[in-house]
Amino acid sequence: MEDNIIDKSKSDQGPLEGNLSFYHAFESLDMRQMESVWAKGNAVGCVHPGWGLLTGWTAVMKSWSAIFENTSLMQFRITDAQLHLAGDYAWVVCVENATSVVSGQVSEFRILTTNILIRSGELWLMVHHHGSPLYES
Amino acid sequence: MEDNIIDKSKSDQGPLEGNLSFYHAFESLDMRQMESVWAKGNAVGCVHPGWGLLTGWTAVMKSWSAIFENTSLMQFRITDAQLHLAGDYAWVVCVENATSVVSGQVSEFRILTTNILIRSGELWLMVHHHGSPLYES
Repeated sequence: MEDNIIDKSKSDQGPLEGNLSFYHAFESLDMRQMESVWAKGNAVGCVHPGWGLLTGWTAVMKSWSAIFENTSLMQFRITDAQLHLAGDYAWVVCVENATSVVSGQVSEFRILTTNILIRSGELWLMVHHHGSPLYES
Repeated sequence: MEDNIIDKSKSDQGPLEGNLSFYHAFESLDMRQMESVWAKGNAVGCVHPGWGLLTGWTAVMKSWSAIFENTSLMQFRITDAQLHLAGDYAWVVCVENATSVVSGQVSEFRILTTNILIRSGELWLMVHHHGSPLYES
């Protein structure tokens, strides 16, 4: 996985690393890793492309488990990352250039995503993930 | 325009009102109103359904101007609004149940949106808007 980050000053490392940790966890297809990159509790929210909003830890993790179950490969090249710091929160907008193998079918697609992260000690954890299909080139 | 808000305590009024002000401005098809509900400057970002990210005041306002030019009616019923407060920032996730007339063509559609707002005195202004098609019922 590469990353192509527009602005990466030292203070910005945390949220951008938290953002990339999420994609590494997604690539791992391992629920323990995915659980470790999300904030705990009922404030978390997740919008998979085309799905409705999932709210709360249980619903969000259940969705990842279902996705991981049918997926045998997931690779991301993250580009166009833009970071906005807001105290103990941050949001990162980025493009997921993805290759997947789902139920034996290879797909390449692009997703435009808004990720909101919250600081938790040294870590920045995902609290809201909203991905949507990107049709323009 | 109706709103169907899950949690509306007194302290939450500001961001939710800022969120609804954005949709009133969209319905007005008036650039002055749309300009008044966004934070100023280059931190603003906007993802129209299926488009790429637009960054900065000029690009974002140019997009609204282009949309308003071709649109003769825009009506929203906002449902499923969920508010998250984060100090002087807030994010609202909601469903836009929309009816539009664009280039003479009537459409009904649903958009799932993450709106990030920033406090500016008494007002809460839009700083990031990410809307994406909602296919599930």
